[in-house]
Amino acid sequence: MKFKTAMVIFQPSGRRGRVPTGISIVEASRQLGVDIETPCGEKQICGKCKIRIEQGIFKKMGIDSKYIHAGPWQTGEEKYISADEKENGYRMGCVATVEDDLLIFLPEAARAGKQVVSKAARPLDITLNPAVKQYEIKPVPPSLEDPAGDFERICDAMEKDFAIKSLGIDFTVLRDLHKKLKAGKWEATVTVWMDREIISVRHGHNLLSFGLAIDIGTTTVAVYLCNLKTGQVIDTLSMMNPQVKYGEDVVSRISFHMDNDDGLERMSTDLIKGLNGLIDQILSREYELPYPDNNAEDRAKRLFRIKREDIQDISIACNTAMHHILLKLDPEPLGVIPFTPAVHHSLDIKARDLGIRINNAAYIFMLPSEAGFVGGDNVGVILAEEPHLQKQIQLIIDIGTNGELVLGNKDRLICSSCATGPALEGAQIEFGMRAAPGAIERVKIDPKTHEVDYRVIGRDSWRRYSEPEEMKTKGICGSGILDAVSQLFLSGIVAKSGAFSKTNQHPKRFRKHPETEIKEFVLAWANETSIGKDIVITQHDIRQIQMAKASIYTGCKLMMRKLNIDQIESIKLAGAFGAHIDCAQALVIGMLPDCAIDRIVSVGNAAGDGCRIALLNRNKRLEADKISRNVEYMELTLEENFQWQLMEATQFPHMKDTFPHLKGVVPDHILNQK
Amino acid sequence: MKFKTAMVIFQPSGRRGRVPTGISIVEASRQLGVDIETPCGEKQICGKCKIRIEQGIFKKMGIDSKYIHAGPWQTGEEKYISADEKENGYRMGCVATVEDDLLIFLPEAARAGKQVVSKAARPLDITLNPAVKQYEIKPVPPSLEDPAGDFERICDAMEKDFAIKSLGIDFTVLRDLHKKLKAGKWEATVTVWMDREIISVRHGHNLLSFGLAIDIGTTTVAVYLCNLKTGQVIDTLSMMNPQVKYGEDVVSRISFHMDNDDGLERMSTDLIKGLNGLIDQILSREYELPYPDNNAEDRAKRLFRIKREDIQDISIACNTAMHHILLKLDPEPLGVIPFTPAVHHSLDIKARDLGIRINNAAYIFMLPSEAGFVGGDNVGVILAEEPHLQKQIQLIIDIGTNGELVLGNKDRLICSSCATGPALEGAQIEFGMRAAPGAIERVKIDPKTHEVDYRVIGRDSWRRYSEPEEMKTKGICGSGILDAVSQLFLSGIVAKSGAFSKTNQHPKRFRKHPETEIKEFVLAWANETSIGKDIVITQHDIRQIQMAKASIYTGCKLMMRKLNIDQIESIKLAGAFGAHIDCAQALVIGMLPDCAIDRIVSVGNAAGDGCRIALLNRNKRLEADKISRNVEYMELTLEENFQWQLMEATQFPHMKDTFPHLKGVVPDHILNQK
Repeated sequence: MKFKTAMVIFQPSGRRGRVPTGISIVEASRQLGVDIETPCGEKQICGKCKIRIEQGIFKKMGIDSKYIHAGPWQTGEEKYISADEKENGYRMGCVATVEDDLLIFLPEAARAGKQVVSKAARPLDITLNPAVKQYEIKPVPPSLEDPAGDFERICDAMEKDFAIKSLGIDFTVLRDLHKKLKAGKWEATVTVWMDREIISVRHGHNLLSFGLAIDIGTTTVAVYLCNLKTGQVIDTLSMMNPQVKYGEDVVSRISFHMDNDDGLERMSTDLIKGLNGLIDQILSREYELPYPDNNAEDRAKRLFRIKREDIQDISIACNTAMHHILLKLDPEPLGVIPFTPAVHHSLDIKARDLGIRINNAAYIFMLPSEAGFVGGDNVGVILAEEPHLQKQIQLIIDIGTNGELVLGNKDRLICSSCATGPALEGAQIEFGMRAAPGAIERVKIDPKTHEVDYRVIGRDSWRRYSEPEEMKTKGICGSGILDAVSQLFLSGIVAKSGAFSKTNQHPKRFRKHPETEIKEFVLAWANETSIGKDIVITQHDIRQIQMAKASIYTGCKLMMRKLNIDQIESIKLAGAFGAHIDCAQALVIGMLPDCAIDRIVSVGNAAGDGCRIALLNRNKRLEADKISRNVEYMELTLEENFQWQLMEATQFPHMKDTFPHLKGVVPDHILNQK
Repeated sequence: MKFKTAMVIFQPSGRRGRVPTGISIVEASRQLGVDIETPCGEKQICGKCKIRIEQGIFKKMGIDSKYIHAGPWQTGEEKYISADEKENGYRMGCVATVEDDLLIFLPEAARAGKQVVSKAARPLDITLNPAVKQYEIKPVPPSLEDPAGDFERICDAMEKDFAIKSLGIDFTVLRDLHKKLKAGKWEATVTVWMDREIISVRHGHNLLSFGLAIDIGTTTVAVYLCNLKTGQVIDTLSMMNPQVKYGEDVVSRISFHMDNDDGLERMSTDLIKGLNGLIDQILSREYELPYPDNNAEDRAKRLFRIKREDIQDISIACNTAMHHILLKLDPEPLGVIPFTPAVHHSLDIKARDLGIRINNAAYIFMLPSEAGFVGGDNVGVILAEEPHLQKQIQLIIDIGTNGELVLGNKDRLICSSCATGPALEGAQIEFGMRAAPGAIERVKIDPKTHEVDYRVIGRDSWRRYSEPEEMKTKGICGSGILDAVSQLFLSGIVAKSGAFSKTNQHPKRFRKHPETEIKEFVLAWANETSIGKDIVITQHDIRQIQMAKASIYTGCKLMMRKLNIDQIESIKLAGAFGAHIDCAQALVIGMLPDCAIDRIVSVGNAAGDGCRIALLNRNKRLEADKISRNVEYMELTLEENFQWQLMEATQFPHMKDTFPHLKGVVPDHILNQK
């Protein structure tokens, strides 16, 4: 008799898998490699394992109905879960059982071990010229002889001292203007947006002014808190895009909108709530003033907290679908030929119009979009890497849930979008997980013995230098999957077609799943894991990677054809994934067009960089609009031979093709063997 | 033994008085001349008399506490009053009794007999050049070859067909843009604000576009619904300013804000709710297209209803305090020397930012203010009467709850504000009421017999030509009070000082109130009224009128002194009151500076006219800002001898002074008698 099993998905990690029904949610989380905090050892006395049962629709998975399939409420739970929370689906993870398919959200408090923030800010050389600037003024106090309005006094002072004329003011700033001017004894700091509109008047000198550069990915959201007076990045925060529960990729989210009357509203609201949560985190943190410090005791004096009104500007870079969903613009046309966006141009929107809670009169700058599938995030990449200003032809590949490609130089720049899917981020892979502690990030397979070595995020040493029990791995992240596939291919375990080769049975690690009969290869034995079972890579996983890499490769090739380019001099890999992969392995499996391996560089989160550039330099906002107008969008799927090329590219390449680039990287006997 | 009495005030009429406790609210309303609908004859079977018990603070009246002093809830009331309404203070007027002081609001449905809308629009010669204009375009539909965004297509068409460049768009218009363009088969009507920002895109041709000119008085709000394509006034609506319950004049409202943390919020919210109510009325009405009509049967086809999105612009004129309270700008500085407003300049505010529900992206234009006590309504008066463009010196007196005075010509224009108080509008007068059916609006007293004749609003003939029972009067409105005081003076019943003269006892109509011992003169006997008691004018009423007229006269005189003018050539009376008074009587009591009576003209609601001008001609908005900058404000109370002059002006003038202007108007024997 088979046990009945149920599909359980944990958010925000996206980790999923089938578990036997009847076990507790905490137990299920363990089996699936998700860490729920249980400091009390499931004695039901700490309440830390509080989780939320979510309702969501996962079309892609073929599960179409809402599922709230946890076991019944138990007495004792009410000790930690309020009536209101209960109403909203909260349960204790150590008490509630899995009875059928479940989508579970782990609140921050329940998560043991943080995701690795891979969208850290890199140093950039930005000319500081923010859209939002501060001016210290001393308006003349009113008197009976001169009883003019407070706003007019400020305008007079701004014109006299800074030659800034014709200023407007957000009417909400007028609300307590007089009180503030009086409190500051008619000395004030005025914040002006684009030399056009006063968005804040405060009393005091040397006041703080911050901006947020927000990079909204389909899967991950990164927020860079910047000091608008120095350009410095003060803090970096990130979260999963809360919309993940409505669909993993852009197309599923558009479908969710089309299938649900309130779909757009819900997705937008969830994202805005999430962003407000990150802003609240910023407000709750303590920061240190950046001034040099001679006396350690002064440190306490330099600590400060940021107030809501100190956050005075936001720039947002995201793909066109995220852009439309955030602003509640109907995203349906993005999914239908000819994929028309509502707008390309950048937008200045009052933060309050979106319900984003910063300085009440502040604006949000939405980077312009290039096309229906290439958005402001790609404009950000171009702003940061500047192919449009250079003579040399550049290929920039931004790999996220969607892949975005840019090719060209100052004379001509084309862009395209390819559907890589979430496999490279560890989703839809049997033991896939995000790049978090416990994930296998590097894999080596000995071509002779087929013995596996790997490295785990959070540990420095490789498996072969460690005791098995120390590895405590619980899954594979994107770079690990890529490595594994490449190594399986190089070792001959997997053939050029991607199928496990029949001529080589590798009896120790190769097997068929007893139930599904799907072939799989064991990367880590159960005793090396924290989930108590073997971690394998399946035939299905390999297919997923093949699809993803083929789509990137085909895109690059079709774009090169368009520009009549045979050979690429250099490749820039943008995005978190680009920063983590082993470029040699990517070449081995044929994800990238042929290129000297030392000319492939990772440029990190270039979209986020470009977003910061737009935040800190208003002239770059104009440049962004120029870029979005001038970049030519190429719809790959409509190119001649697209399907055929894509199919061909799913194969792994001949060694002789990749050889010239891999010499010294891949052992000679492998390069020579075929 | 005296009966216990309680003060009862009815809103929105403002009618008030003491009634014996224990009587029903309907009975109290009858005694005070307020008509509550009671079609069922108080049999408790119709529910029409539903009223609301209000909480409010009437400092001026010396009543400082909240009062909800109705008798207990009775079974039967729930038949007509929902639990929610009960929670909000609703009662049945025929059941609930008066137990102590009460402030009662009559919903529209409970009011028998409408107030006379005295703010009707007069024909104006306005060059039509509204801030909001419509353009019909045919953007190129998107294709795979040209997949540019919808907004960019519209911009291309606008530039090609109308040479309008660099357009922005309210991001909310983008939300369903594609759907609308598609529905209209790529023919659309675009509404553009100030040639700058797209605020609406609709499909179809010859679409309607309306704007509202809103004149927010301290006591009355008037809304003019204008066709932005023809300039025509389609409809005029009015209501009491719902803030009246927080205080009758500007100063009491500022105090209400200072005494209550949520005072500003409540006053603003009530006004905005009221405005939205008027807008809802517009949306519920049926209008007729203005095209000429050959066939009566076509009439039905020309009937239309206005949709919310058709209302695409608003201009608002109001005094500075109403301006601040509406926008929730702290009004406290307006009440404290040097009376500084937060802003003089006009403001463009998104209607949605104020919660005013018209086209979602539309703007509100707030007319600029001249000073803390002279606001956009006075700018409106100047826009309409144009003293700033003329050589001849004009004196314009706008009499509302606050009086606003303008004097000068194109070389120099000064303005001031005088506290007339609400007496001229019938408030704080024993039998005072607003200009509504049943109000005495004209009074004549025979100087020999002291017999009284009067005319009532809603009836054409005078008392002497009618049966007493037909008069059915219930109070005196502003013009009636002015007449009465003037006639009492001319007949010698009241002396130059304003006191009832001792030498002339007029035994029939003159008496002392048995309880208060205040002297009073009977205007209408109980059998001529619908309230079953004599309508009198008291010594206190006369004092109120003296104060009001003195304050106007003193203001005019001090302004004339400032401009070195001895004699006024002509006077314009603005405002509803100006339209109703008998100018001769106003000269008799010394309310106006001496002027030939045929040179005193009423110009109606000039503030509302100016507001309409700003709605229909955007250039006039710039002119309004120029006016507000150039008009000099004069704070009367700070002028030399102000107090002394004011005191002197409370007296009635010598006949010989007013004589030259009154010849032919007042009988010779009266002019000659002193």
